[in-house]
Amino acid sequence: MSSSPTVKLASGREMPLVVPKESAADAVYNAIKIGYRAFDGAYDYQNEKEAGEGIRRAIADGLVKREDVFVTTKLWNNYHRREHALSMARAQNEAWGLGYIDLFLIHFPCALKYIDPSVRRYPAWWIDDQGTVEEDKVPIRETWESLEQLVDEGVARSIGISNFQVQSLYDILSYAKHPISSLQIEHHPYLAQPGLVAMAQSHSIVVTAYSSFGPQSFLELPETFSKKAKNISPLFVSEPISSLAKKYGVSPAQVLLRWATQRGIAVIPKSNSPARMQQNLDVFGFDLAIDEIQSISDLDVGLRFNDPGFYLPNHPLYIFS
Amino acid sequence: MSSSPTVKLASGREMPLVVPKESAADAVYNAIKIGYRAFDGAYDYQNEKEAGEGIRRAIADGLVKREDVFVTTKLWNNYHRREHALSMARAQNEAWGLGYIDLFLIHFPCALKYIDPSVRRYPAWWIDDQGTVEEDKVPIRETWESLEQLVDEGVARSIGISNFQVQSLYDILSYAKHPISSLQIEHHPYLAQPGLVAMAQSHSIVVTAYSSFGPQSFLELPETFSKKAKNISPLFVSEPISSLAKKYGVSPAQVLLRWATQRGIAVIPKSNSPARMQQNLDVFGFDLAIDEIQSISDLDVGLRFNDPGFYLPNHPLYIFS
Repeated sequence: MSSSPTVKLASGREMPLVVPKESAADAVYNAIKIGYRAFDGAYDYQNEKEAGEGIRRAIADGLVKREDVFVTTKLWNNYHRREHALSMARAQNEAWGLGYIDLFLIHFPCALKYIDPSVRRYPAWWIDDQGTVEEDKVPIRETWESLEQLVDEGVARSIGISNFQVQSLYDILSYAKHPISSLQIEHHPYLAQPGLVAMAQSHSIVVTAYSSFGPQSFLELPETFSKKAKNISPLFVSEPISSLAKKYGVSPAQVLLRWATQRGIAVIPKSNSPARMQQNLDVFGFDLAIDEIQSISDLDVGLRFNDPGFYLPNHPLYIFS
Repeated sequence: MSSSPTVKLASGREMPLVVPKESAADAVYNAIKIGYRAFDGAYDYQNEKEAGEGIRRAIADGLVKREDVFVTTKLWNNYHRREHALSMARAQNEAWGLGYIDLFLIHFPCALKYIDPSVRRYPAWWIDDQGTVEEDKVPIRETWESLEQLVDEGVARSIGISNFQVQSLYDILSYAKHPISSLQIEHHPYLAQPGLVAMAQSHSIVVTAYSSFGPQSFLELPETFSKKAKNISPLFVSEPISSLAKKYGVSPAQVLLRWATQRGIAVIPKSNSPARMQQNLDVFGFDLAIDEIQSISDLDVGLRFNDPGFYLPNHPLYIFS
C-alpha cells in the first residue's frame, strides 16, 4: 500500500499530492484502502454527502483517522454573497460530516444570481428558469473575506481559489489576511500555463491540476465540451509521452501525473477502475529527467478545454479571455 | 480632409475611432491639420507635455476647439495608491494643459512600489535601483475608485482600463459607480481575443486596440520584445490581408485597421510619416464583407507580443497568464 507524498500549504497545513475525485461512498472507502488520503469535491459535483460517508466509514473501521484525510471542496458561483457563502459552506461541511473542511475553494471567479438550491439543482445552476446566465455584482473580495471568516470559525482549515488568472491572484494577494493556499486550474501539456504556475508558486500558492490527461477528460462529455478534444491527438498515444511510458515501464497516465507532481503540482486523477486508481497513486516510484519534463512541456499550445463560455455559447460569460 | 467617425462611451461621451500615438508637438499639430481629433498618451510614454503643446497650438491657431479633441492618457503602475493616483493624474492633466483629460485609464492591472518620479524616470519604473520589480499590495478597487474621484473632480471625463482580462472586468463591474468606458488591449489578427471583445462590448465597454499591425509594432524593439515578432509572418504580406488590400485598392495597414473599426473597435496607429498618418485615418471609405472579416479573424493563434513577463524575465510578474 503506497501513500501520496504531501506538499506544504501557505496556511501551514500539508496536502497530499494525489487527490482522487470520487463520487460514491464505496469508491471513496476503497480509495482509502489502497492508500488515498485526499479527496476533491465541490458543491456542483454533488459528491459531498456520498464521499463523506465513505470517509466516515473508513474512520469507523479504523483504516484512517480524521487528521490523516484531506478534503477539498468548492463554493459554487450562485453563492458568492457573504450570507450565501457562509451558509453554503456550513451546509457543505455538514454534508461531509467530518467536523471541518481541509481546503475550501472559490470554484470560479464569477458571481451569478442566487438560485435557491432547494428549488433548482445542478446542473441547472449556470442558468435560471429562463435559460439565461444571470450575473450578480459581488466583488471577489466579499467572497474571499467570507472564506477567511470560515477559517476563523473553524469550518475550513485552508482556503484557496479555482480557475483564477494571474491578474485576479495579484488582486486577492493585495487584501488577503489569510494566505491563498491553493489554486486549482486546468493543467496538462496542451495547456501548461507556465507563467501562471511560476507566479503562483513564487507566492507560495500550491497549484492543483485538474484534467491532467488533457482531451481524454472531455471525450465522453456532450459535443460542446468534446469538439475540441476530438480534434487533437490524445496525449496517451502522443510523443514523447508514450516513449517515456515505455522507458520507465509505467502507463502514459502515470507519465502525465509525474510530469505535474515532479514540479510540485498536485493532481486530481479521475478513474472508474480500482486498478487504474492504484496506478494513479503510484506515480512517485520514478523520476523524469529535466529535459524529459521539458519535452512534455513543449507540447503546450495554450489549448483550453474547460471555459464556461464553451458550453454557455449564447452568454457573454467568458472566464479566461 | 477626412475626420474619424466616433463611438459612444458608457460615460455618455463620444470618442473618435482612430487615435494616433504621437510624441512630438509638431507631429500632433500636423495630425490635427490632416483631420485627427484624438490622441493616445500615457505617463510612461512621456509624451504628454509635448502632445499637449501641439494641441494647444492648434487650438490657438483656430484649427480646432478643445471640445473637438479627445485625449486619452494612463496611470502608471507605481502610482496605484489613492494619494499617488490622484496627485499623478492632476500632474498629468497639468502637463497636457487642456483643462481636463477625456479618458483616463489604469495602464496595467498590477501595482508596483512607489518610485518618486523626480528621482528615477522612465524606463526604469518597472524596476527599482536594485533592478528588481517590487510589487505593492494595492487592490484594483482602490485605484479604480481614485479614478472615479477624478471624474467627480472634473480632472477626467471618462475612465477605463488597459491590459485587463475578463475576470478583472467582472470584478470592477461589481463595484464601479462610474462606468468602465473603454478597455485598451493588444489586438490584431494573431491575438483577436474574441471572448474578451464580446464580453466588453456586451457590457458597453468600448475596446481600443493597440499594436493593430501585430508583429510589425515590435520588430524595432530590443530582442526580448522582437524575438516572437521575427518568428511569425508579417501581417502586411500575409493572406488574406494582401489580397484584400489589392481588391479594395488600399494598403494592408488600412485593411487591418478596417478589420478592427468595422467591429466597433477603436485603433491607435503609430506612424512616422505624414503620408501614412493620412492613410491610417482614411479607413472608412471601404467596407470588408462579413466573410472577409472572418477570414482575417481566422488568423488568430492567441499570440501575444506584449506581456511584461517577456521583458522582465527574472521576475514573477506575468500579467496575462
